Amino acid sequence: MGSMMRRPTIMDIARAAGVSKGAVSYALNGRPGVSAQTRERILATARDFGWSPSGPARALSSGGRTATIGLVTRRAGRLWGSHSSFALLVEGVQHTLASTGMDMIVHSDPDGEGSPRRRWETRGRVDGVILAEERMGRPPASSPAVPALVLGAAMDGNGTLSLPVDDHPTMNEVMHYLVALGHTSLAHVAGPADLAHAHARAKAFEQTARDLGHRAVVVHTDGSGEHSARATRRLLALPESPTALVYDNDVMAVGGLAVAEEMGVAVPSELSIVAWDDSLLCRLVRPALTAVRRDIVGYGRRAAALLIGAVEGAPVAEEMLPGGELVPRESSGPLRLPR
Amino acid sequence: MGSMMRRPTIMDIARAAGVSKGAVSYALNGRPGVSAQTRERILATARDFGWSPSGPARALSSGGRTATIGLVTRRAGRLWGSHSSFALLVEGVQHTLASTGMDMIVHSDPDGEGSPRRRWETRGRVDGVILAEERMGRPPASSPAVPALVLGAAMDGNGTLSLPVDDHPTMNEVMHYLVALGHTSLAHVAGPADLAHAHARAKAFEQTARDLGHRAVVVHTDGSGEHSARATRRLLALPESPTALVYDNDVMAVGGLAVAEEMGVAVPSELSIVAWDDSLLCRLVRPALTAVRRDIVGYGRRAAALLIGAVEGAPVAEEMLPGGELVPRESSGPLRLPR
Repeated sequence: MGSMMRRPTIMDIARAAGVSKGAVSYALNGRPGVSAQTRERILATARDFGWSPSGPARALSSGGRTATIGLVTRRAGRLWGSHSSFALLVEGVQHTLASTGMDMIVHSDPDGEGSPRRRWETRGRVDGVILAEERMGRPPASSPAVPALVLGAAMDGNGTLSLPVDDHPTMNEVMHYLVALGHTSLAHVAGPADLAHAHARAKAFEQTARDLGHRAVVVHTDGSGEHSARATRRLLALPESPTALVYDNDVMAVGGLAVAEEMGVAVPSELSIVAWDDSLLCRLVRPALTAVRRDIVGYGRRAAALLIGAVEGAPVAEEMLPGGELVPRESSGPLRLPR
Repeated sequence: MGSMMRRPTIMDIARAAGVSKGAVSYALNGRPGVSAQTRERILATARDFGWSPSGPARALSSGGRTATIGLVTRRAGRLWGSHSSFALLVEGVQHTLASTGMDMIVHSDPDGEGSPRRRWETRGRVDGVILAEERMGRPPASSPAVPALVLGAAMDGNGTLSLPVDDHPTMNEVMHYLVALGHTSLAHVAGPADLAHAHARAKAFEQTARDLGHRAVVVHTDGSGEHSARATRRLLALPESPTALVYDNDVMAVGGLAVAEEMGVAVPSELSIVAWDDSLLCRLVRPALTAVRRDIVGYGRRAAALLIGAVEGAPVAEEMLPGGELVPRESSGPLRLPR
C-alpha cells in the first residue's frame, strides 16, 4: 500500500518527460522559462501521473512545501489604528513573497487563541506563520515543521522566532523631547496590556520615566479611539493632570485630542500630544499630530524574509527592527500653564 | 499507473478506520466532534494511507477542494483611499469564511494582469476568487473549476460572476442634494478610468447630470490624494469653475479640500465637497466631509457567501449591493458666491 500511495515528485515527472526538475516546476507553476511546446509535454506527462491543474499541485513541490505563509493579526485590523498599518504590513510581506512565488493567507484571531494557526498546521496549509499581534506570556509552541515568527515583541520559548521592534530608543527620544519642552508629568495611553508589543512599549515608557525622574502613568485601553477618549478624560480630570500624553496609535491620539478640545485644554500650550505610528490621519487633523513614523512596509518585508529563511532551514540570527523617528508637528510644544 | 496515483479519499480512510466521513473530516481538520481516542485512530489510519499533517491534507477533502478563496485587489490597498476599506473588506470576507473553516489568500495585482489568479488556478490553490478592483473591458475568463466574482461592477462574459454596487440611486441622491443647495456646475474627480467600479460611478454621475440638465465634468485620476489635488487645482482655475466636487474616495477629497484652502476658495460657501466612502478621516478633517457611507464589511460578507455558493455549484441569482447613504457634514452647504 505504501508505494501505491506514493505521490509523484517533480523528479518523477522530469524523468518521464525528459526535462529538468526546474522545467517541470516552471511549467506546473505557470511561470516563464520553458517553451510552449515543452510546457505542453510536461503538463501532459504530469496529467499521466494523476496531476490536475485544479488538484493539489503543491504535493509535487519538493519537501512537501505549501509555498504559503500565514499572517495572523488580532482583530482584522481593528487594533491597527486607522487600519493603514494592516494594509502596509500586507504590502511589505507580499513584496518579499513576490520574488518567491509564495502566497499569503491572512486571518484575524480575535481571542488570540491561536486557532487559525493550529488549523493551518493540522491541515498543512502553510510553511510558516507571522504572528503580528501576539499575546503576552504565552509563547506559542512552534512546531519544527511550521516555524512561527512573532513580529513586534521579543518572545522566547518553544522555538518561536521573534522580530522585536526596538521601541526603547524611540520612546527615549520622545520623552526627552517632551521633558525639554517643560513637561514633568507624563502619561502613556497604551493598547491592551496583554498584547506583547503594547506591553513592551509601556515598559519602555516606565523605564525612561524612572531614568528621567519624572511622574509617569500608564493607562491600558483596548486600543480604540473611544476607550482612549475615556482614559484621556480621566487623566485630564486628575488634580495634577499630566501635561503630555503619548498614545499607542493614531486613532487613540485623535480620540484624546477631541477630549482635550471638549474639556477646554489647549493643545499644545497646556497639553502636548504624541501619537505612535504616523499616518495620513496624523497629518490631516488640526492641530496636526506629532508622531512616531515607522517603516511598517519594511517590517513586513523583513518578517517575511526571516520566516522564509527559517522555513528553508537557515539559521536565524537575532535582530531587532528600528523603532522609528519622531516627527514633530503642531500638537507638541513648550508648556505654558494658564495663569 | 492510474490506480497507483489515485489519491486516498476521506471515504477510503473512513472505511478503513470504521468511522463516518464526517469523523474523518473532523479529525484531520483538528476540529472538535470526535473523541481523542477516535481522532488518534483516524490519524493513524490516515498516515497508513500516506497522509501527513504537514502534507497536502486538502487532497483528502471531497471534490479536491482547497477550502481557500483568493482575494485580489489592484494595489495592496493603495487605491482604497485611507486603506480602511481594504481592512474592512478582509474583515467581511473572513466573517463569512469563519463559519465554513475556509481560508483567504490575499494578493495585490498592480498591473491588473490577473497573474496571481492564473497562478492560483494553475497550482490548484483556491476554490474561487473575489476580484475587488477589476479592470474595464476585460472580463476575466472564469474556469468552471474556479469561479471568479467581480465585486463592485457589473461584468458579463466568460462565466464570471458579478456583484455590482448600485451606485446610481446614491449618485442621484448626492447630485439632487447638491443641486438643491444651488449648484449648477458640478465635477466628479474620479478614480482610474480603466477600473470597472470607477467607470461605473462616473457613468452614473454623467447620466444623472444629463437628467438634471446641468453642466458636469468627469476628471479621472489614479485615485491618490496627490493626483486629486492636481485635478482640483485645474478645475478651480477654470473660467467657470465648478462649485460642487464629488470625489471617489476619502483621501482624494481631503487632497481637494487642501487645494480649496490653498486657493482661497471657501468651503462650503463657495465650494461644496462630497467624498465617496465615509471614514474616520472624513469625520476628523475640518471642515468635516460630507460623505457616502457604505457597508464595506457587508460587501465582503456577501461576496464571500455568493462565491462559496458558486463553488458548491449552487445557481447564483443576479443581485446588486446597496450603494450607500449620504451623510451631510460641514463640507457641503448652500452656494453663496462672493460679491
